[in-house]
Amino acid sequence: MPITVVGFDGDDTLWHNETRFILTQTELRELLLRHVPDADVDAHLADVEMKNLGLYGYGIKAFTLSMIETAIQVTEGRIPAADLEVILGWGKRMLMEPTELLDGVEDALRELHARYDLLLITKGDLFDQESKLARSGLADLFLNVDILSEKNVAAYRAVLARRGIKTEEFVMVGNSLRSDIVPVLELGAQAVHIPYHVTWHHEHVPEESLPRSGWHRIAGISELSRLLAEL
Amino acid sequence: MPITVVGFDGDDTLWHNETRFILTQTELRELLLRHVPDADVDAHLADVEMKNLGLYGYGIKAFTLSMIETAIQVTEGRIPAADLEVILGWGKRMLMEPTELLDGVEDALRELHARYDLLLITKGDLFDQESKLARSGLADLFLNVDILSEKNVAAYRAVLARRGIKTEEFVMVGNSLRSDIVPVLELGAQAVHIPYHVTWHHEHVPEESLPRSGWHRIAGISELSRLLAEL
Repeated sequence: MPITVVGFDGDDTLWHNETRFILTQTELRELLLRHVPDADVDAHLADVEMKNLGLYGYGIKAFTLSMIETAIQVTEGRIPAADLEVILGWGKRMLMEPTELLDGVEDALRELHARYDLLLITKGDLFDQESKLARSGLADLFLNVDILSEKNVAAYRAVLARRGIKTEEFVMVGNSLRSDIVPVLELGAQAVHIPYHVTWHHEHVPEESLPRSGWHRIAGISELSRLLAEL
Repeated sequence: MPITVVGFDGDDTLWHNETRFILTQTELRELLLRHVPDADVDAHLADVEMKNLGLYGYGIKAFTLSMIETAIQVTEGRIPAADLEVILGWGKRMLMEPTELLDGVEDALRELHARYDLLLITKGDLFDQESKLARSGLADLFLNVDILSEKNVAAYRAVLARRGIKTEEFVMVGNSLRSDIVPVLELGAQAVHIPYHVTWHHEHVPEESLPRSGWHRIAGISELSRLLAEL
């Protein structure tokens, strides 16, 4: 059965995301080191984020709350409120930033749109993801948009069932082995990995744990059209 | 055409929500009055929430961030970080609270489930709403769940189109005139208003602005079954 439906991840597959978190995290580190010169800000933030994940989920609001919590803890409550207001402002700035597409995304999607049904299957904060999509200029190219709180096998199965899509005719494209590749392979569909130059630690999975077949890796989205034609 | 599909709002229609925000807001007021005895905390918070709505959307994380911003502004930066940590904790407590159903909800839904397709159509934070539904014990009664970032005419139209539901066979049930009644009537479907004893100021619409027909009001969900049979 030929591929008829292509699912795309959003963050770091179609538009830049993780680099913005890293930039803000750098600012947080610099701010807190002024108060506590020997603090391991990154480790502390990672720890707080993981503890909060089950309560907050993903996204910039969750990140902002975790930055504030980290700032208070690392400074043992000595950080002035004015500095915490600065952190609040970083969160707002991230939420307002224009959606910056990765190289070649718009051309690739326009070409694929003529030959496949395109789905956006992304995870994270509903409001933030919808807002990013609206600002991306790509919304019209997608037949449907699914914003999931977690990308696991059950969530992908529900998306395909809801649209009446067979696993054999579906391929998922994304930058995260954990979210875009592993659960899709488990479901019996195919997947294409397009690495982004940085990966959030939470999304990391050892490559040895992946099946040997059923997935492909390309260097950029401009190679996708040729690969899909061969599947 | 008889009604075959019943859409339900979640917050303050199936489970308590606004009362929890009000309780936390009372705590914020008491905390900040200790620092600034003549502050109008509620007005300031309402103002901050409205300014942030376009960036943050709805939900507890947005509320927590707005509480922190309010606390810093009202105290002109004099609030100690330890107090802000307390506010962070209130947000987490809200996110962890068990889903407390309104009186009669479970019985009513179980009865209706035998005769209609039930949809949950709620707005707010994706992660938080999914978590509340999971803890409600009601998830199996709904044919589908749609969590929207905003409940307007376009959003309802998309929900019905996606499910192949005609407006004549659909009725929406909810506590908010603004979110559950007005846009549904505009779409040409029917709606049932079940008032909750408090309404967030943002959800308030003057009743005179509503159409005279097409919607009904009942005092509680236990009256719904009889009303639907008459529609």
